[in-house]
Amino acid sequence: MLMSELAARAGVPVPTVKYYLREKVLMPGRATSATRAEYDETHIRRIALIKALSALGVSMTRIKVIVGLIDTADGPLLELIAAATWALPPVTEAAPDSGASTGNPRAASILATLGLTLPTEAPPVAQLEQALADAEAAGMPITDERFRIYTEHVTAIAAYEIENMPLDSASAAIEYSVLGTILYEPIIAALRRIAHAELSFRRLTAEAD
Amino acid sequence: MLMSELAARAGVPVPTVKYYLREKVLMPGRATSATRAEYDETHIRRIALIKALSALGVSMTRIKVIVGLIDTADGPLLELIAAATWALPPVTEAAPDSGASTGNPRAASILATLGLTLPTEAPPVAQLEQALADAEAAGMPITDERFRIYTEHVTAIAAYEIENMPLDSASAAIEYSVLGTILYEPIIAALRRIAHAELSFRRLTAEAD
Repeated sequence: MLMSELAARAGVPVPTVKYYLREKVLMPGRATSATRAEYDETHIRRIALIKALSALGVSMTRIKVIVGLIDTADGPLLELIAAATWALPPVTEAAPDSGASTGNPRAASILATLGLTLPTEAPPVAQLEQALADAEAAGMPITDERFRIYTEHVTAIAAYEIENMPLDSASAAIEYSVLGTILYEPIIAALRRIAHAELSFRRLTAEAD
Repeated sequence: MLMSELAARAGVPVPTVKYYLREKVLMPGRATSATRAEYDETHIRRIALIKALSALGVSMTRIKVIVGLIDTADGPLLELIAAATWALPPVTEAAPDSGASTGNPRAASILATLGLTLPTEAPPVAQLEQALADAEAAGMPITDERFRIYTEHVTAIAAYEIENMPLDSASAAIEYSVLGTILYEPIIAALRRIAHAELSFRRLTAEAD
């Protein structure tokens, strides 16, 4: 298809397609003349990926890193997935005064208790440290019991997600990991808020009886 | 204690204390002279609440709503909790072109399947709709099986949280609900990202054998 049809089918204006080409996050089409190129389904899928990431607040700089890893897919898959997902925005903005410190001691001690082998400098570990420090600073430190329950159920969710990761190509695995992390995180958060409303209603109705 | 001691113990500069007083999110101290007032532990706790909410990106306008509900605690507790938690920022920013529409049809049909009674216009339902629409637009719509697994484990987490809600005062219940929602959400998200890294490692190591 030509660029105009690509733009229409992907749901973006033609200048946006040109911008993605210029930024090299969209691969060039197959040139059919000096001024024309043919695009296919892979281009539509790529535009959907870029649109999804930008809509969720991922900067063009980070999108370039992610797309570069998908396109070159060079190196051990595990490292490519780690690099791509760690280029996503953190789960929460760092609050400079919240008491998180280097070495991520709170998170590291928890990972050790759980027998996890992730390096303590990995971005999600730093994000856990930050979140634990924020809870502590607000006078609501997390108890061991609460942490155990969170870990149990979050691990069950993650196990399902990783079992369903497509391994037919490195690019597919990286794309699934990146999109699955960032698209399903708000679904899980919204479901939790819905469950809170529903369960508060049940508990407060029961107490009132 | 005097204002200078309050500021020191709460870990904020004196002008910040004055700003919170002016915005009426911090309750006035007990006047001991025309220019002096005594503050106590409730003021320290309130500053911790305001600091936690602002560090997590909650605007002063929203903080005023939340604090107003905690201070007046007027009306049925369930409605106060709903109003306070629904004043929190959404789980994800709305993307204008993501195809979410009025009436929240995707989320509403899911709530109906689950037998949930929350009104379909409630903010967390709109947020779920948005997140489902984003996933669909990115070509990764959520399957029924995935949704069932998410719901099962998220409900288990929420059940623990609601069982542990303090009911000794309406203010305590509202404060726990607001802080619990916003402080523990990033802990859950960070744990999920950690579990992904760990479980990808295990799956890819196993496949390589």
